[in-house]
Amino acid sequence: MSEVIRVAVIGAAGRMGREVVKLVLQDPELELAAAVNRSGVGTDAGTLVGLPECGVLLTDDIEMAFAETKPQVMVDFTVPQYAFAHTEIAIRHGVRPVMGVTGFTPEQIEQLDKQCQDKGIGGLIAPNFSIGAILMMRFAAQAAKHMPNVEIIEYHGDQKLDAPSGTAIKTAELIAANREELRQGNPNEEETIEGSRGGYYNGFRIHSVRLPGVFAQQEVVFGDFGQSLKIRHDSYERAGYMPGVKIGVQKVMEYTGLIYGFDHFID
Amino acid sequence: MSEVIRVAVIGAAGRMGREVVKLVLQDPELELAAAVNRSGVGTDAGTLVGLPECGVLLTDDIEMAFAETKPQVMVDFTVPQYAFAHTEIAIRHGVRPVMGVTGFTPEQIEQLDKQCQDKGIGGLIAPNFSIGAILMMRFAAQAAKHMPNVEIIEYHGDQKLDAPSGTAIKTAELIAANREELRQGNPNEEETIEGSRGGYYNGFRIHSVRLPGVFAQQEVVFGDFGQSLKIRHDSYERAGYMPGVKIGVQKVMEYTGLIYGFDHFID
Amino acid sequence: MSEVIRVAVIGAAGRMGREVVKLVLQDPELELAAAVNRSGVGTDAGTLVGLPECGVLLTDDIEMAFAETKPQVMVDFTVPQYAFAHTEIAIRHGVRPVMGVTGFTPEQIEQLDKQCQDKGIGGLIAPNFSIGAILMMRFAAQAAKHMPNVEIIEYHGDQKLDAPSGTAIKTAELIAANREELRQGNPNEEETIEGSRGGYYNGFRIHSVRLPGVFAQQEVVFGDFGQSLKIRHDSYERAGYMPGVKIGVQKVMEYTGLIYGFDHFID
Amino acid sequence: MSEVIRVAVIGAAGRMGREVVKLVLQDPELELAAAVNRSGVGTDAGTLVGLPECGVLLTDDIEMAFAETKPQVMVDFTVPQYAFAHTEIAIRHGVRPVMGVTGFTPEQIEQLDKQCQDKGIGGLIAPNFSIGAILMMRFAAQAAKHMPNVEIIEYHGDQKLDAPSGTAIKTAELIAANREELRQGNPNEEETIEGSRGGYYNGFRIHSVRLPGVFAQQEVVFGDFGQSLKIRHDSYERAGYMPGVKIGVQKVMEYTGLIYGFDHFID
Repeated sequence: MSEVIRVAVIGAAGRMGREVVKLVLQDPELELAAAVNRSGVGTDAGTLVGLPECGVLLTDDIEMAFAETKPQVMVDFTVPQYAFAHTEIAIRHGVRPVMGVTGFTPEQIEQLDKQCQDKGIGGLIAPNFSIGAILMMRFAAQAAKHMPNVEIIEYHGDQKLDAPSGTAIKTAELIAANREELRQGNPNEEETIEGSRGGYYNGFRIHSVRLPGVFAQQEVVFGDFGQSLKIRHDSYERAGYMPGVKIGVQKVMEYTGLIYGFDHFID
Repeated sequence: MSEVIRVAVIGAAGRMGREVVKLVLQDPELELAAAVNRSGVGTDAGTLVGLPECGVLLTDDIEMAFAETKPQVMVDFTVPQYAFAHTEIAIRHGVRPVMGVTGFTPEQIEQLDKQCQDKGIGGLIAPNFSIGAILMMRFAAQAAKHMPNVEIIEYHGDQKLDAPSGTAIKTAELIAANREELRQGNPNEEETIEGSRGGYYNGFRIHSVRLPGVFAQQEVVFGDFGQSLKIRHDSYERAGYMPGVKIGVQKVMEYTGLIYGFDHFID
Repeated sequence: MSEVIRVAVIGAAGRMGREVVKLVLQDPELELAAAVNRSGVGTDAGTLVGLPECGVLLTDDIEMAFAETKPQVMVDFTVPQYAFAHTEIAIRHGVRPVMGVTGFTPEQIEQLDKQCQDKGIGGLIAPNFSIGAILMMRFAAQAAKHMPNVEIIEYHGDQKLDAPSGTAIKTAELIAANREELRQGNPNEEETIEGSRGGYYNGFRIHSVRLPGVFAQQEVVFGDFGQSLKIRHDSYERAGYMPGVKIGVQKVMEYTGLIYGFDHFID
Repeated sequence: MSEVIRVAVIGAAGRMGREVVKLVLQDPELELAAAVNRSGVGTDAGTLVGLPECGVLLTDDIEMAFAETKPQVMVDFTVPQYAFAHTEIAIRHGVRPVMGVTGFTPEQIEQLDKQCQDKGIGGLIAPNFSIGAILMMRFAAQAAKHMPNVEIIEYHGDQKLDAPSGTAIKTAELIAANREELRQGNPNEEETIEGSRGGYYNGFRIHSVRLPGVFAQQEVVFGDFGQSLKIRHDSYERAGYMPGVKIGVQKVMEYTGLIYGFDHFID
């Protein structure tokens, strides 16, 4: 019924890019139009991801790739420094951008929205394509209205550099925006080991666990008289973002203008 | 600012009734007007619950108690067979009923609603006063729209007679009403130990764990490509329902007519 | 078959003392010989704990109670400052001490052991009577030998003053004693919110969560390539210590000398 | 200090075989001597697993591979039907077998043990190389002695055919062998949805959850008066077995005869 959507993948040999290539090659509703990458030019995109040859070879020329293959959608999980330029090129070619990159300024977003409007196409910038993570954050925000006592515990691999994680900070902001002001805990509390009570944010605490084997997990725990409510999301691998990417690719065909945040598609 | 609300507790010596008496005696915004119970007539309600004497003695005459003490709200956690009669008596005396009892028929609810309307008072019938349990069910229903693969695991004490629990069944109904039709799992699945895959409900499974020490816990687990989302509620003791009871007592002062379901107060 | 053991409860009106009184009154293998408490003298011990009258009245004279009722075992959950004196009195009267109090010095323990030996009776000092907590600590120590990457997350009520909990520190010591030396995590790790990585202990981290409704919970999480192992203990209420107390009361009848640590009875 | 161990991988292109090849190529203490597989002959083993070329090409002739490359250890994760023959060939060539295959009969094990003894080499047959899973089973068995009330909840992918999992059944056997006989739960318990109480095994229950995204997880929950103890193991991917495989490869160099079960190396 629905027609196949032709997709160009930018940064196709990157860790996320390879997952996107796999998704597009394996999903009958999607077709790989082009695979762009700085290195590996000439490699078959199927071979690249451990699938049979698909006939689409890696290229490093994004403009030519768009001109020749005329994709309907571009998926880009590269880096902030190139993301704006890629998006502009795509829109100019009438290719709808689906950007899994952070770091756009509000001015850039406004500008790109205007370009999408002018061209009559849709676009999407989404820092997080995980449906489960988005639901976790939404539920945490809702629960905080009714159960204001809360702590966040997040788990990532032991080589991660920053703590807390971006998702934990985003969740904390949503909680703070939705609950009554509250300084939790005993005012005379004392740490016999410094830091054991975690990071302080707006009256509550965030704990960052770092262990090998973990990809990304987060637990938001609410406590009240005689009860606890926990919302936990476990991400096991990059592939977990692909159902969200597919929704993004499909949705971007249906509207005009640039949308920021994948949660707009999760009603 | 807000005036103290005068509360009558019916079934005051029951397990939930005692918690309600404690709540009312210890909360400065509430006042114990009367404590009704079939047995123990003459016992001080404070003594009954391990608090200092409060001067309110148990009585078994609900009509006289209402006539003499003129409570504003009645809280009743007794049994289905008396609940309708108690509610009618309360409304007749202008006492707002807050009923933690199940088993009202739709006709009875309609009738009591009319009586509340006629008398110009509010009333509440709520099978579940646990804020956390209500949020868990709501989040489970919302998540089922986006992550249709789900199973429910519920934990109760090892002497519980029925499985699954009422909350699990209610949650399952909400999930079924919100997700696309789906028969989960491998169609050729085989149980080498019968029952190990749990109880089948509308395409998914419910598991009932029974262990000593557990009061009431439930975990709703959603699975998708590369990720899991879990919503877990732990109820540790009856006292956990009291914050919800207090909200019920306060809310019932503010409207006219009978409301069914505590979730109407959790926006 | 086994004879009933006659027990004296010291600090009978305290929070733990009341649980012990309940245990002794409700267990057919135990008999309440005496109930000692500074206040409430003359109150029936059964009434004190919400059970029928038992005929044993609270007294504040421990020496006279021992002399008159000749208990076989004393259970004492009072405070460090009196614990040593109580233990000496008990031994002098030939009453086997079961002490749920911390704070004994090594010298005191040696002294009391000698007194027990001389009198030919057994004695027990145990900071923790929870079978589950002891198993959790033991398993954590064993696992640390094979999976050295670990973090501890402990949960207590939001009014607790100290962090981490005593159990968390004890667990951390056991882990450190059993695993190879290891400084976990990325050496260049940075906290954008101070304390978010938790308290540092011997190369790993401890996180203390404080929320209303929680009694005492602890999770020890081990991570390795592609896997996690979690050992979690949930204590829901003081009554959870009573099966351990009963084992202590029974065991202390069977040996001579003072034993420190309940884990000696858990093989 | 320790010399590099030369390893032959049988079934090198299989799902587990590829992980073993990766392990051997990336670990400086191991060296890939040969990679045997029925298909893909001539492919470089490095290329096969997404690593740089390593110079070892796939071969389908196990005898010749052993004769030419003289490996010290063979790792074999193929299928039961060939496992016995492979093991005999290896021993004949003086190659120590490390077998991740089930289905050996007691007679076969005895026979292979004798062959290893005669040849003066070590051998290992292990149905499970996951250190965490072995610890989970061991702790479950130990806990069952002291907390006999228990249920098992295991989680696997939604396409798995059999329930309960092999690990769950193995765990259940260990629990049953270690606890007092006990028929848990309320004798008058009733299932309103058939199967909701799970599979019955020796007095307790096993629950099998099947959800997409899950690789292999198991939780063993013990309940007692006022407390719960949980032991949970999460396996995220096949790579999680590799630390165990490496231990097996190292250990098999140090003894003579055939050992059955990886748990012998976990003290």
